[in-house]
Amino acid sequence: MTTNDQNRQFESSESDILNQILNARRDVRGNRFLSTPIPQTELDKIFSAALCAPSVGFSQPWEFVTIEDITVRQKIAESFRLENEKAAKLFQAEKSNQYQQLKLEGILQSPLNIAVFYNPQKGPVLGQTSMPDMGRYSVVCAVQNMWLMARSLNIGIGWVSILEPERVKDIIKAPANRELVAYLCVGYVDKFYDKPELETLEWQARKKAEQVILKESY
Amino acid sequence: MTTNDQNRQFESSESDILNQILNARRDVRGNRFLSTPIPQTELDKIFSAALCAPSVGFSQPWEFVTIEDITVRQKIAESFRLENEKAAKLFQAEKSNQYQQLKLEGILQSPLNIAVFYNPQKGPVLGQTSMPDMGRYSVVCAVQNMWLMARSLNIGIGWVSILEPERVKDIIKAPANRELVAYLCVGYVDKFYDKPELETLEWQARKKAEQVILKESY
Repeated sequence: MTTNDQNRQFESSESDILNQILNARRDVRGNRFLSTPIPQTELDKIFSAALCAPSVGFSQPWEFVTIEDITVRQKIAESFRLENEKAAKLFQAEKSNQYQQLKLEGILQSPLNIAVFYNPQKGPVLGQTSMPDMGRYSVVCAVQNMWLMARSLNIGIGWVSILEPERVKDIIKAPANRELVAYLCVGYVDKFYDKPELETLEWQARKKAEQVILKESY
Repeated sequence: MTTNDQNRQFESSESDILNQILNARRDVRGNRFLSTPIPQTELDKIFSAALCAPSVGFSQPWEFVTIEDITVRQKIAESFRLENEKAAKLFQAEKSNQYQQLKLEGILQSPLNIAVFYNPQKGPVLGQTSMPDMGRYSVVCAVQNMWLMARSLNIGIGWVSILEPERVKDIIKAPANRELVAYLCVGYVDKFYDKPELETLEWQARKKAEQVILKESY
């Protein structure tokens, strides 16, 4: 069987490897990134993973902007700083203190950023007529594919969402109709943590399967 | 190295297997599903994949309702029929004819459906303060993990989005604040197609990488 045989049956050992990749994927922040550049061959694999994501009505409504320019990234980092300052005030006293000690992005520490946009299609999209968010969800599926492929290449990704989307669009000259879905920091790391950092720091507890999986109805 | 070692380095052969799974994943509709039940061990693996998805602020805002009851699924299928009838009218003459010939769901043909909800958290969520859709996007990441794990177990998933979300909530008695993100049909298949069906049928053309990957800015 070749890699082009999409009807191929996978072995349980292959499913196990997927399970290991899924479990080893982490959100990486600036305290773990190395400045080592990402080889183009590896970046190609990450984008190839994005482009085979599912998309509603095969609309492929995604766009990716790779950003290395440090002056551009400094402007993005400034948007993070402003938004993060506002965010810290939304949490109660003790939680707000803990919040302010967290490192939540790696915009400047990682060698590469990727801004991911939703490009809405003109006219109706098959499968999106009753649920208008489906196009945005397709873009998210592409991001998750990238994240997993990166991890399998031992490359870390951090998804930064504490940004003013319109400011990001402005900085990288995105057309008015585009919507920022994700802003990714990409780079090799000194280590991947065993658990999500917010779990280790007891910011929020892990939910049990039986709390979130229901049978037949609520 | 064990599966519990999250810092583990993956080999290129392991990354290749992920690439094969990503490429072999398909959206499966009713004409390909077999009625063979899904063993609980396999379903557990699919949910385990969901629960290690990334979530904004470790909020884990997902809920999954497994649906086997045929009378419930008949009600869901009726919502699909109504929404699909409306949808067909939105496309132009020739496209509308083609639309009406497509098989777009496998609600009754698959042995298992899973409704996936976003359960918004009370109070602020870390990482969601500037981009309110982040919780919904976390749920989508969980769905993509499920889809990939299912494919690695040679199980197909079809994502049905031609449904009235409030009607689905009503049918399975979801609390008012929950939001339907995805409705999945799950089952073994007689075959996985080589390409997305909508690509083969020339509903929409595949975009080239250079159309959607930009350097530094628009």
